[in-house]
Amino acid sequence: MNSFGKQFRMSIFGESHGPVVGCIIDGCPAGLDLSAADMFSDLTRRKSGAKGTTPRKEEDLPEILTGIFQGKTTGAPITIQFQNNNTKSKDYAQFIDMPRPGHADFVAQRKYNGSSDPRGGGHFSGRLTLAIVAAGVVAKKLMSQLSIKAELTSLGGSTNIEEALEKAISKKDSVGGVIECTVDGLSVGLGEPFFDSVESLIAHGVFAIPGIKGIEFGNGFKSIEITGSKNNDIIIDQDGHTATNNCGGINGGITNGNQLVFRVAVKPTASILQEQMTFNFAKSKMEALNIKGSHDLAFVLRVPVIIEAITAMVLADLTMINNNQQSAFSVQL
Amino acid sequence: MNSFGKQFRMSIFGESHGPVVGCIIDGCPAGLDLSAADMFSDLTRRKSGAKGTTPRKEEDLPEILTGIFQGKTTGAPITIQFQNNNTKSKDYAQFIDMPRPGHADFVAQRKYNGSSDPRGGGHFSGRLTLAIVAAGVVAKKLMSQLSIKAELTSLGGSTNIEEALEKAISKKDSVGGVIECTVDGLSVGLGEPFFDSVESLIAHGVFAIPGIKGIEFGNGFKSIEITGSKNNDIIIDQDGHTATNNCGGINGGITNGNQLVFRVAVKPTASILQEQMTFNFAKSKMEALNIKGSHDLAFVLRVPVIIEAITAMVLADLTMINNNQQSAFSVQL
Amino acid sequence: MNSFGKQFRMSIFGESHGPVVGCIIDGCPAGLDLSAADMFSDLTRRKSGAKGTTPRKEEDLPEILTGIFQGKTTGAPITIQFQNNNTKSKDYAQFIDMPRPGHADFVAQRKYNGSSDPRGGGHFSGRLTLAIVAAGVVAKKLMSQLSIKAELTSLGGSTNIEEALEKAISKKDSVGGVIECTVDGLSVGLGEPFFDSVESLIAHGVFAIPGIKGIEFGNGFKSIEITGSKNNDIIIDQDGHTATNNCGGINGGITNGNQLVFRVAVKPTASILQEQMTFNFAKSKMEALNIKGSHDLAFVLRVPVIIEAITAMVLADLTMINNNQQSAFSVQL
Amino acid sequence: MNSFGKQFRMSIFGESHGPVVGCIIDGCPAGLDLSAADMFSDLTRRKSGAKGTTPRKEEDLPEILTGIFQGKTTGAPITIQFQNNNTKSKDYAQFIDMPRPGHADFVAQRKYNGSSDPRGGGHFSGRLTLAIVAAGVVAKKLMSQLSIKAELTSLGGSTNIEEALEKAISKKDSVGGVIECTVDGLSVGLGEPFFDSVESLIAHGVFAIPGIKGIEFGNGFKSIEITGSKNNDIIIDQDGHTATNNCGGINGGITNGNQLVFRVAVKPTASILQEQMTFNFAKSKMEALNIKGSHDLAFVLRVPVIIEAITAMVLADLTMINNNQQSAFSVQL
Repeated sequence: MNSFGKQFRMSIFGESHGPVVGCIIDGCPAGLDLSAADMFSDLTRRKSGAKGTTPRKEEDLPEILTGIFQGKTTGAPITIQFQNNNTKSKDYAQFIDMPRPGHADFVAQRKYNGSSDPRGGGHFSGRLTLAIVAAGVVAKKLMSQLSIKAELTSLGGSTNIEEALEKAISKKDSVGGVIECTVDGLSVGLGEPFFDSVESLIAHGVFAIPGIKGIEFGNGFKSIEITGSKNNDIIIDQDGHTATNNCGGINGGITNGNQLVFRVAVKPTASILQEQMTFNFAKSKMEALNIKGSHDLAFVLRVPVIIEAITAMVLADLTMINNNQQSAFSVQL
Repeated sequence: MNSFGKQFRMSIFGESHGPVVGCIIDGCPAGLDLSAADMFSDLTRRKSGAKGTTPRKEEDLPEILTGIFQGKTTGAPITIQFQNNNTKSKDYAQFIDMPRPGHADFVAQRKYNGSSDPRGGGHFSGRLTLAIVAAGVVAKKLMSQLSIKAELTSLGGSTNIEEALEKAISKKDSVGGVIECTVDGLSVGLGEPFFDSVESLIAHGVFAIPGIKGIEFGNGFKSIEITGSKNNDIIIDQDGHTATNNCGGINGGITNGNQLVFRVAVKPTASILQEQMTFNFAKSKMEALNIKGSHDLAFVLRVPVIIEAITAMVLADLTMINNNQQSAFSVQL
Repeated sequence: MNSFGKQFRMSIFGESHGPVVGCIIDGCPAGLDLSAADMFSDLTRRKSGAKGTTPRKEEDLPEILTGIFQGKTTGAPITIQFQNNNTKSKDYAQFIDMPRPGHADFVAQRKYNGSSDPRGGGHFSGRLTLAIVAAGVVAKKLMSQLSIKAELTSLGGSTNIEEALEKAISKKDSVGGVIECTVDGLSVGLGEPFFDSVESLIAHGVFAIPGIKGIEFGNGFKSIEITGSKNNDIIIDQDGHTATNNCGGINGGITNGNQLVFRVAVKPTASILQEQMTFNFAKSKMEALNIKGSHDLAFVLRVPVIIEAITAMVLADLTMINNNQQSAFSVQL
Repeated sequence: MNSFGKQFRMSIFGESHGPVVGCIIDGCPAGLDLSAADMFSDLTRRKSGAKGTTPRKEEDLPEILTGIFQGKTTGAPITIQFQNNNTKSKDYAQFIDMPRPGHADFVAQRKYNGSSDPRGGGHFSGRLTLAIVAAGVVAKKLMSQLSIKAELTSLGGSTNIEEALEKAISKKDSVGGVIECTVDGLSVGLGEPFFDSVESLIAHGVFAIPGIKGIEFGNGFKSIEITGSKNNDIIIDQDGHTATNNCGGINGGITNGNQLVFRVAVKPTASILQEQMTFNFAKSKMEALNIKGSHDLAFVLRVPVIIEAITAMVLADLTMINNNQQSAFSVQL
């Protein structure tokens, strides 16, 4: 469903070309200072307009409609909403007959028997990540003792990001990239066996972001190239710090107090300015498709802050769950 | 929590050296033929005893205690239980003071304030995957139209698996590997926006398996090395088949009717027969640790069938959820 | 949390005197005709303005912001929102220091450490039932084969409703009442053992409505006055019809194909126009309180359509869950 | 589904005449002293054998199979299992063709397409409440500061319980009754708006117990006979104590620190020793049915401790949820 999290729970709604996108946050504790201004910095990091991103211009102004009183959260659900203004919906009609390669056009129409909203990808649009970023800000404020940082480490397979971007622009082609996320300041013990490991929950949330095709924790796929004697992280002190951090700060699905580290692969944006072939379902034959509309050439550039938001929400949720297991009761435990 | 899935829901219980491990399956439809014998084949694939796996010998005989009558499921919860017989718990006492590098020993004791069961890893043990395999058999029977296959494609970084294994054995060191899972026969439309994408749910389940550190769908991390014009899969017919399958059978989080493909990285087993340093929490200093007990040198060898089980459960669950959205109502939709 | 239902799932948001109240419906199938006009009839039944209800006048105009395209549901979350216009928030400041007897004022401030929105009861207001009615309309449209009817059967302990109302008005006092809800057209088999019985789910939803203090199914509390031989409903035909319906259409928590019947008790509205004593927490002593603002004298008059909405949602949800257990799979069951 | 609760979560399994019934408790904090002996007292209260209860004799010996180590909970799922020994399954075959009036026989076979286990009511049996009582003991131990007490206040419509029982026995008929449950020692603030009110959750759990047909909180159905000025409970001190307790300790769905009070109606047991008519589905005509097997004449006698168990579980769950909202975070709230 369109919700994520158990105690800190976010529900998402909206379509790319409908009137609004937004989210509800349920379970946020009362008394947290919160205003739209808190969100500007992260929303700007996600914003379009920079080189390689869609020319669609949106104000991305968050309206906090509910759950707030006199500048503080009240404990009631927090509704955050964004208007969609700059939409050019006529460009999308063709994608019902001729689904774009690499897009959700085909599966959306099939899954919903032709009733899915095709405009701008409808509910499948990357525009909904706006709501994720907003919810992430609330989680970050709760977890202010943490330093959560995601950044692009390679683009189009190259670590020379500016150059890779210029090359893609000149070829009218799209590129993907790798983002690394680190979290410092975590305590030991977040994560729940057996199915709510830290890796399980972060991966669950991250794969909801359009275009993510891989995730690895610690040395991840590289861990298979070394043996256990090299891969094991030796504990060196009372707090559980380790000499190396091949496990990315997680043992048995639980944070071990070291830096949390993971990387995600974001595929090249599906919408490209080159002509592509696709199947025309109305004519039952293959045809050439030229995609118009506003699109990112490298959506990956906008993804780091979304990754941070998912991470913050998972950690806030696990913090609440972990806390209640011990401190809720007056009985001797 | 220790449950996974919404409509086809599996809950896990037990410890490595307690009397039993097992699972409950809730939501399995009534009328499915089911017996312990159905599980033997998959349980054998997970079994220990082969070269590179733990010498701990267990019968792994599933008892189906509830939810079955006259050889068929009744619609009530299905309880499947396995006895633990071959346990040598004295070997583990030391790991409370001296946690094994790469293991959950340290985090388990911290998270549970010293009350966690240390014997054989307790509830964090790979032995609990036995219950996952059993539940997976039930899901596979429901989804009998599918062909779900996982296999080891590399060990210790090498595709020459036998050789890599011998090398590890001779060095008394452990190795990890990569497993590829494919699913044929899927219909279009499984997966739920926004947060229950097929990737999200499979990754969630897979990262619950001890030792998994990475997952990628389709060409995954390789997708960043090519541009969108190469990476996009061109639709070539009315059923949505594509010329290539770089997306691994998933667009926008939804199955597109092509082969589902993903790969996971399993780290080298943490328990090795070599001496390692660790922190002695009783003495507050570092010391050498020699691990006794029964351990896998390459746990990855036993993981493919577990991956299949998780995959089958996710697909059974998504099938139920997808089905009810359209066919449940008599109103014209 | 602020959500209800599993497959047909409704989440609620808003405050009495904030900018909006509303709901999100997640899981509604695609292809259902839906417009704001569908909701007018039920919203009018809940509306204030009639004798015995609050003088607060609101347009109660539903805006369907998401999840709809070309007049049909798309399968994406449906957001329905109502503006709050006629609010007089200055009346409520005193209730922080002097909580109204019978109201949530005191518990809300305590639970949320003083951060709860006190205006008009904030998130605890009966105004949020507006969103429940709107969501109920969607569920009713899905379950159009059913006849769901709730009506007031007694007011202030009397079946002469008009007279009881006049009496209460003349005394400036408030009254409660009993509502009976019946559902015709149900098939056999809705409801899930062990914890999601039809009674469990309806009661869960109904007790979320402010002011409900009791519920009984079939002959309910009267069943204890007769013996089993009288209370048992004799099955008389192949479809499971029974000679009597003391069980209210439910056996073992599951619908049996007969009429579903239950009754709820709605307490007298807490806000009354008479002076009452309460504790003044600022002054630490008891004082007289005179409640201003807009209030219902008999909120129960507006509750029947809310009860219908909850009932429709529960039955839609159970229909989806029941359906997927058998029809989702191609295997012989 | 067969689970109840969010953070303190209980899942139930088993059939009346299968090998076992039991439960899993997930989310119980680590470090709680727990043994089978803790359960004997409550299990004895539920036990059969007394006048008016079934002659089926079972040892009802709880085996705590998982989640416990050295006498303390470990934080892992707690599995509690009971053997079924004294079963006479041949008595039940006839109920497939001739469902017992007032029983789940008919709905169970229909819902599960004939695959339901008919022996002793299968999964629909009151025997599963054994597992509820066991789980309730764990919740009570966590909430040891509370005094939770349920008792039978009337039987067969009479407060002279012994006499009513004798009368029923002499008539070979069954009787129902009313149980009142009170909880002392509650703090202010348990319960979650909008849908997880204390009334919602208790009612949800209570209606899962076979035979419950009504519930009311505080003065419940009696509240409609008085006006608001009489029904409102006046707050008289800083802690929120009230002069009366018509609301049963709950305002706006949240505990207000006064005594929690509710009553439930338990219908007369459906199985009676008199001949009754029912429909014979094999012969398609009505026929006389004589029920053999072991049955309670007044199951209500065994229900008080089950009500306590449900109540304790709800309060433990709400305590965990309430606690994590404020105390989990280091940020100033």
